[in-house]
Amino acid sequence: MEIKENTLLSQINYPADLKKFSENDLEQIAKELRQHIIDVVSVNGGHFAASLGVVELTVALHYVLNTPYDKLIWDVGHQAYGHKILTGRKDLFHTNRIINGISGFPKIAESEYDAFGVGHSSTSISAALGMAVAAQLKGETDRQHVAVIGDGAMTAGLAFEGLNHAGIENSNLLVILNDNCMSIDPNVGALKEYLTSITISKSYNKFRDDVAHVLNNISRLGPNASKYVKKIEKSIKGTLLKQSNFFEALNFRYFGPVDGHDVKRLASVIKDLSAIPGPKLLHCVTVKGKGFALAEKDQTKWHAPGLFDKITGEIKKSSSDKPQPPKYQDVFGHTLVELAEQNQKITGITPAMPSGSSMNIMMKAMPKRAFDVGIAEQHAVTFSAGLAAQGMVPFCNIYSSFMQRAYDQVIHDVAIQNLNVVFCLDRAGLAGADGATHHGAYDIAYMRCIPNMIIASPMNEEELRNMMYTAQLENIGPFSIRYPRGNGVMVNWKTPFQELPIGKGRKICDGEDVAILTFGHVGNFAFEACQELNSEGYFPAHYDLRFVKPLDEALLTEVFTKFKTVITVEDGCLQGGMGSAVAEFMVDHNFNSSIIRLGIPDEVIEHGEQPELWALCGYDKDSIINAVKKVAICRKTDTIAS
Amino acid sequence: MEIKENTLLSQINYPADLKKFSENDLEQIAKELRQHIIDVVSVNGGHFAASLGVVELTVALHYVLNTPYDKLIWDVGHQAYGHKILTGRKDLFHTNRIINGISGFPKIAESEYDAFGVGHSSTSISAALGMAVAAQLKGETDRQHVAVIGDGAMTAGLAFEGLNHAGIENSNLLVILNDNCMSIDPNVGALKEYLTSITISKSYNKFRDDVAHVLNNISRLGPNASKYVKKIEKSIKGTLLKQSNFFEALNFRYFGPVDGHDVKRLASVIKDLSAIPGPKLLHCVTVKGKGFALAEKDQTKWHAPGLFDKITGEIKKSSSDKPQPPKYQDVFGHTLVELAEQNQKITGITPAMPSGSSMNIMMKAMPKRAFDVGIAEQHAVTFSAGLAAQGMVPFCNIYSSFMQRAYDQVIHDVAIQNLNVVFCLDRAGLAGADGATHHGAYDIAYMRCIPNMIIASPMNEEELRNMMYTAQLENIGPFSIRYPRGNGVMVNWKTPFQELPIGKGRKICDGEDVAILTFGHVGNFAFEACQELNSEGYFPAHYDLRFVKPLDEALLTEVFTKFKTVITVEDGCLQGGMGSAVAEFMVDHNFNSSIIRLGIPDEVIEHGEQPELWALCGYDKDSIINAVKKVAICRKTDTIAS
Repeated sequence: MEIKENTLLSQINYPADLKKFSENDLEQIAKELRQHIIDVVSVNGGHFAASLGVVELTVALHYVLNTPYDKLIWDVGHQAYGHKILTGRKDLFHTNRIINGISGFPKIAESEYDAFGVGHSSTSISAALGMAVAAQLKGETDRQHVAVIGDGAMTAGLAFEGLNHAGIENSNLLVILNDNCMSIDPNVGALKEYLTSITISKSYNKFRDDVAHVLNNISRLGPNASKYVKKIEKSIKGTLLKQSNFFEALNFRYFGPVDGHDVKRLASVIKDLSAIPGPKLLHCVTVKGKGFALAEKDQTKWHAPGLFDKITGEIKKSSSDKPQPPKYQDVFGHTLVELAEQNQKITGITPAMPSGSSMNIMMKAMPKRAFDVGIAEQHAVTFSAGLAAQGMVPFCNIYSSFMQRAYDQVIHDVAIQNLNVVFCLDRAGLAGADGATHHGAYDIAYMRCIPNMIIASPMNEEELRNMMYTAQLENIGPFSIRYPRGNGVMVNWKTPFQELPIGKGRKICDGEDVAILTFGHVGNFAFEACQELNSEGYFPAHYDLRFVKPLDEALLTEVFTKFKTVITVEDGCLQGGMGSAVAEFMVDHNFNSSIIRLGIPDEVIEHGEQPELWALCGYDKDSIINAVKKVAICRKTDTIAS
Repeated sequence: MEIKENTLLSQINYPADLKKFSENDLEQIAKELRQHIIDVVSVNGGHFAASLGVVELTVALHYVLNTPYDKLIWDVGHQAYGHKILTGRKDLFHTNRIINGISGFPKIAESEYDAFGVGHSSTSISAALGMAVAAQLKGETDRQHVAVIGDGAMTAGLAFEGLNHAGIENSNLLVILNDNCMSIDPNVGALKEYLTSITISKSYNKFRDDVAHVLNNISRLGPNASKYVKKIEKSIKGTLLKQSNFFEALNFRYFGPVDGHDVKRLASVIKDLSAIPGPKLLHCVTVKGKGFALAEKDQTKWHAPGLFDKITGEIKKSSSDKPQPPKYQDVFGHTLVELAEQNQKITGITPAMPSGSSMNIMMKAMPKRAFDVGIAEQHAVTFSAGLAAQGMVPFCNIYSSFMQRAYDQVIHDVAIQNLNVVFCLDRAGLAGADGATHHGAYDIAYMRCIPNMIIASPMNEEELRNMMYTAQLENIGPFSIRYPRGNGVMVNWKTPFQELPIGKGRKICDGEDVAILTFGHVGNFAFEACQELNSEGYFPAHYDLRFVKPLDEALLTEVFTKFKTVITVEDGCLQGGMGSAVAEFMVDHNFNSSIIRLGIPDEVIEHGEQPELWALCGYDKDSIINAVKKVAICRKTDTIAS
C-alpha cells in the first residue's frame, strides 16, 4: 500500500513535516490521509469509520500542537489511525493489529507521540488532567494537554469524574468533544439528546450574542425599558448565563459547536483555545465514516467492517461454502429472545454493545424489555440489580474486559445481596487483534473470589443455551456465563433446552494416566488433541468442568483418585484461575497428584489472531498434545529409572 | 435507651403509626427522633452527623410515601438510622453495628422497608431506576421510587451514569439531592461549586418567574417592545431555559432548592412531586449534624465520632494510660510527607477520604501536591496514571473495598502500561462494624491476577514505612500495599527507612514439622500463637511473606523442602488469595506438602468487631494455635498407626 509519489502525504512522516505546509494545503492533506486509511483498512481490516470521522481534527491538531511535547490523548483510541500515520508509523501502518505489528490503539511503548495507552473508553480526561497537573508541578506551564473524546465515551462515569475534578484545577486542559452521535451503535442517553439540542440550536455562543443584541435594542426604547433591561441582564448574567450549559456548570469554558470537517477553521480555533488558560471544552460536530458514503450511511456496520472492496463497498465474506457454526454472541442473542418469550421476567441489558453482544436481536424483538444504557458498565450492573430486586431476571451482557469497570457493582449490588442477575461475559479469554486492553483474561480469577457467584462456561452452543436456560429457571443468585469471541462448533445449534445441574461437570472421555480438565470452549482443543493422541496411542481422559464455581467435588475426587497427573486448560489467566481452583481443591482435600496448568501466563499479552495467541500462551490443541506426551515421556523415564 | 412514655415517638413503630399524626405534629416527631438518635449513638457509637441531617427528610418521606410498596432507596445508607427507627427497628436500634445485631446500613434481608442494600456510595439512582422500570414492566404504575443521594455521592461516575439513563426513561423516579456540601470530609469538585452557586442565587424556579415577570413588564411598553420580548422569549424558552440547569440538561425536572429542615414543607413538596410523572430531582439543602451544635461545627469529626457525652460533647478516649501503637493509616499519612519532602515526584491522591486515609496530613503540609478528587475512585486511579506517565510518583490511597470501583483503571490504565503508581489499600481485610460492604476481603485475589502488579503487605509500622520507601525509589511499575483498619503494634514506629528487596519474605522463627506462612498484619497473630505454642512444647516455624507477588520462590522452596505441613494465614478471601498463590507454587514446582489455608471463607461476612470476625473466620491467634495442634495430633496418630 504505497502512497503515490507527488502527493502531499508522501512528504509527511512526522508532524514537523506537516507544519511546513501552508494552512491552505491542509484540506488536500486531509483528503489524502483519508484515502490512505481507506486504502489500507480495506485490505488489512481494522476499525474504520471512527478514524475517517476525525481526519480533519487529526491534521489540525498535529498542525497546531507541538507534539510530542504537547500531550495529545485519544479516548478509546480506535480513531487514532490518522494520528499514527502522521507520527512516524506510515510505513508500518499495514502491520496494524497483526501479531508483532503496530497496535490498533495508541500505546506509550510504541511511540512518544502516543501520550497514553488506551482501548477502553472515557479515560482521556482523567489521564490528560494528570499530565496537566504534572506539568504544573514541574513548571512546564507552556505545555498543552488535549483530550479527544466522543459523545459516546462522555456518557461513562469516569469521564464525568474527570470533568468534575478538572473544573476546579486551573491547568492547561482542552477537551475536544467529538460529537458524532455514535458509540459503535447509535449513542443513547439524556446527555446525547442535550448535545443534539444545542447543536440544532446552532450555537450557544451565537445565542449569547443574540440575547445581548435584542436586549440592546429593547434598551433603546426609553428609560423604562432601559431599567427592565438592566434587571433582566443582571438576572441572566448573574444566574443563567453562568449556568446555562452543562459543561459551564462544571466550570469548563464551552466553545462550539464547530464543524469538525473544516480543517482550516479547526486549526485556527484550536490555536486560539491553546492561548486560554484553564479547563476548556470544544464541541466539535463530526460524521463517523466521513468521506466513505456507505460508512456514513450505516455507521455501525462500518465501525470495523473487516475486509472490503474500496470501490464497490462490498464486504468480503469467508470463502467457505459449507455452513459455519454461529458466533457465540448470536447464540446468546437468539436464545435470549426464545427464553424471554417463555419467561416474562427476563430483561436484557447492554452498555452500548447492541451489535457487539447481539443484544440488538432482543432490542428489535422486545424493545420495551431490552435496554442499551450507553457506555456505562457500572450503571448496567446496578440497574440490573434494581430490576432483580423487584423480581425481574436481567441478563446483563458485558464483555469480560469491560466488566472490570463494574467490579464493585457486581460485588456490592448483586453478589452481597445474592440477587439473580445473569452476567453474560462475551469476549472472555484472548480476544485477538484488539490486543492487551481487550483480552478477557482475568474474569475467572476476579469472579471466583466473590461469594454467591456461580461461574459457568460453555464448551459449545448447546451448553451456552442450557446455561442460559438454567440461569433463569429459579431465583438462584448471581450467575455468570463466560464465552469467547468468535464462532462455536455446532452448525445445528438450536437444540432443545435442558436444565443443567449447577456445579456439575461431565466426563467427555475416559482414559489412563492423565486427565485433562477443561473449562469452556477450550474443551474443543482438548477434544481434538485427544483424538490425535488416541491415534498415536496415548489415551488421556477428558473432563469438561462446565462450572468453576461451585466446583464439581465428586468429579474432582474421581479425577484425583484415578489420575496421577492432571492437566488443566483454560482461556484465562493462570493466577487465581480455574487451574488455581483445582489446585485449591486438591490441597484442601489432601490429594497429591501432579497438576500441569495451561492458560494465560502472568504477563501482558499483545494483539494477534486468536489461534496465534492460544499457541503463544501454550494452550491450543498442539500445546495440549505436547503436555500429554511430555507426561508420558516422564512416566517412561520414571519406569526406566525405577 | 428507652424512649420516654408520652412522647409521640413512643407511639410510632411503623410508618402506618406516623401517618396517624397531623402535619403539625411532624416537627415534634422529628425533634424526638433526632434526640433518640443522639441518645443511642452517644452510648453505642456508629455514624452520627449524616442521620441527624436527614431527620426531617426521613419523617416527611415516610409520612407521604406508601412504603414499603413505594420504594425508598438511601444512597450510602449511613444516614438511614432515622429510617430504621421508623420502620420496625426502634427496639433493635441499640444493637446497631454489633455482631448479630442490626446492620449500620440498609439491608434487604433485614427489613422489607430496606429496598436496596448499600454501604458504598452513588448506587441509589441506578438501583431506583431498575426498580422503576420493573414496576412499569409489571404494570405497577402507581408505585413511587425515591432515591436520596448526597451531593458528595453525586460526584461519582455511577450517579452520573444513572442520571443519564434515567433522563430518557419515563418512569416514576424522584431523586432527592441531599445537599450538605459534605462527603465525610468537605465535598469538592466543580459540581459542588455549581450547587453552591444555584443555592446562593436562592432559587432557580424563582429566577424563571422573575425573568417572565420582567419580560411581561417590557412587553407593556408598546408594540416594538412586544416584538423584542417575543424574540427573547423564544430564545430563552427554546434554548436557554431548557438547558439552563445541570439536571435539566439531563432531562430531569429540577425543583428547589428547598430547606431540608422544614419538615412540613418537605412533606408537601414530596407529595406534589409524586404526582408528576417522569424523572424529577428535588434539591434539598441540609446541614450535616443538624441539631447537635458541635457536630454542625465540625462535621468531619462528628461523621462517626465513637462514644461521647451527649451533654458536654466530650468524645470518649480509650482508657489505657500506656502509649498505644498508632493506626496504620496515620503511619501512612506521616510517612508520605516524610518521603515527599525527599522526593519531589511524589504526589498524594485520595477519593474523598482525606481524614479516613490520613491523606489530610499531606494535604495540610503540601496542599499543591495532595489531591482530594471527591468520591471518584475511577478518576483517582486514571488521574494517578496520568501523573505517573509524566514521571511523577503518585501514592493513590483507596480503601480495599472501594478499590473495587477502580478495578478496570488499575488494569487498563496502570498495569498494562506498567506505570509506577503506588496503591495504598487501607481497610484491607475484615473491616469490622461497617460490615459486608466494607470488608476488604477480595483485593489479594483481584490484584494477584494482574500482570506487572507488585503486592506487599506490612506486618507492622516499620514494614509499612519501608514498603512505601521502596515503592518510590525507582520506576518499578505498579506497587500495591495493603494494610488493615486499626492500630499497628509498634509504639516507637518512626524507624529509619530501609529498602526492602522486592518479592522477598523473611523467616520470623525456625521450627519443626509445621511452617506457618503469613502475609501482613496477621503475622502478629501467628507470632503470638508461636509464643504460646512454644510454651506448650510445639515449635512451628513462622515466615512472613511480605510480598504475595512476586512470590519469594527461594523461601517457598525452603519451606516445602523442610516442612510436611504448611499453614497459610491471611486476612483475605481463600478463593484466589495468598494461600491459593502458595498452592499454585507448590503444584507448579512439584512439591507435595499438606497445605492448610486459613482466611476468609467463601461467604458474605457480616458486621462485628474485628477480633470477633477474625475468630469467626478462623484465623485469629487461637485458630492458628488449634490448627498447629491438630497437625501435631494427626502426626501422633500417624505415628501410632504406622
